[in-house]
Amino acid sequence: MKRVPIGVSARHIHLSVEHAKMLFGAGYALTVFKALSQPGQFAAVETVDLIGPKGKFERTRILGPLRGKSQVEISRTDAYTLGLNPPLRESGKIEGTPGLIVRGPVGEVELQRGVIVAARHIHFHTSEALAWGIQHNEKLSVEVQGERSLIFNEVIAKVSDRYALDFHIDTDEANAAGVKTGDWARIL
Amino acid sequence: MKRVPIGVSARHIHLSVEHAKMLFGAGYALTVFKALSQPGQFAAVETVDLIGPKGKFERTRILGPLRGKSQVEISRTDAYTLGLNPPLRESGKIEGTPGLIVRGPVGEVELQRGVIVAARHIHFHTSEALAWGIQHNEKLSVEVQGERSLIFNEVIAKVSDRYALDFHIDTDEANAAGVKTGDWARIL
Repeated sequence: MKRVPIGVSARHIHLSVEHAKMLFGAGYALTVFKALSQPGQFAAVETVDLIGPKGKFERTRILGPLRGKSQVEISRTDAYTLGLNPPLRESGKIEGTPGLIVRGPVGEVELQRGVIVAARHIHFHTSEALAWGIQHNEKLSVEVQGERSLIFNEVIAKVSDRYALDFHIDTDEANAAGVKTGDWARIL
Repeated sequence: MKRVPIGVSARHIHLSVEHAKMLFGAGYALTVFKALSQPGQFAAVETVDLIGPKGKFERTRILGPLRGKSQVEISRTDAYTLGLNPPLRESGKIEGTPGLIVRGPVGEVELQRGVIVAARHIHFHTSEALAWGIQHNEKLSVEVQGERSLIFNEVIAKVSDRYALDFHIDTDEANAAGVKTGDWARIL
């Protein structure tokens, strides 16, 4: 049985080095609040405000380390609140996506793009993917038990030596399935 | 193939006659804004504010007609905003559920109970249920297609001569599945 732990992603932002500088000042380094499931990734102590045409979210968590491009990951529910219509995308694929205004303690950035609803996916270490016969970018179906039991189709397998086993869904998906971080799902 | 139209329920409230009187004044009658899929049911022009320990929602739609008991149906996402932890329940089963404060134009009501996250369900007219071999209170699995394709398990069949075919899910479930009111699903 192929069991995977669930990791629920609340809305968050990844910042580029350039944008971090504009929001927090030159030479500012993020402080680790909590390590995440993927090696080297962390939730930072620092937060920013996300401002859309219709609404805003204050104190949105930054995930580190800094990246090449800034990216905002929100749920569809969040998108309605902000007044945006971001597409469902894999992380990093931000071509043609909407932007928003990011406000930090020392400045603001108007992102031209980078807002996505993240496509659900499972991170596999290469060894696990091999053992289970799972290919990188394969689409999987994953079952969750309980009073809101459901089967997620279109779950993308992401395989790398740098990954640890984790099934990433957003808050809408977690609420629809009645699950939280640390619960378990089963690949069908 | 057993195809069912999807009806997405945003947060809403059903009011008792007594509570409607306290919120809108004696003798006040709700105005129909829009007929709903179930015969005789309607969204009212009137709204109320829902106030929880941690947050509130202004202008929450009232669904009519008035009922024996007041009931508030919210998504799990809404529940976090309000600071409540309502159980997943079928409509009408409000024993042991939390309450909240409801504010109307002429008064407030402190509900002692009645806040639920609605269990997903399909309304069937008796004739359809017969034709498809579906029993009242049977649990069904229902598939949604698309980029967020999923299969909802634990879907409760509600059969009555007073019902019209409609698959009711809340906004978390609709967002997780990437669907909206009027889209179609398939009973497996």
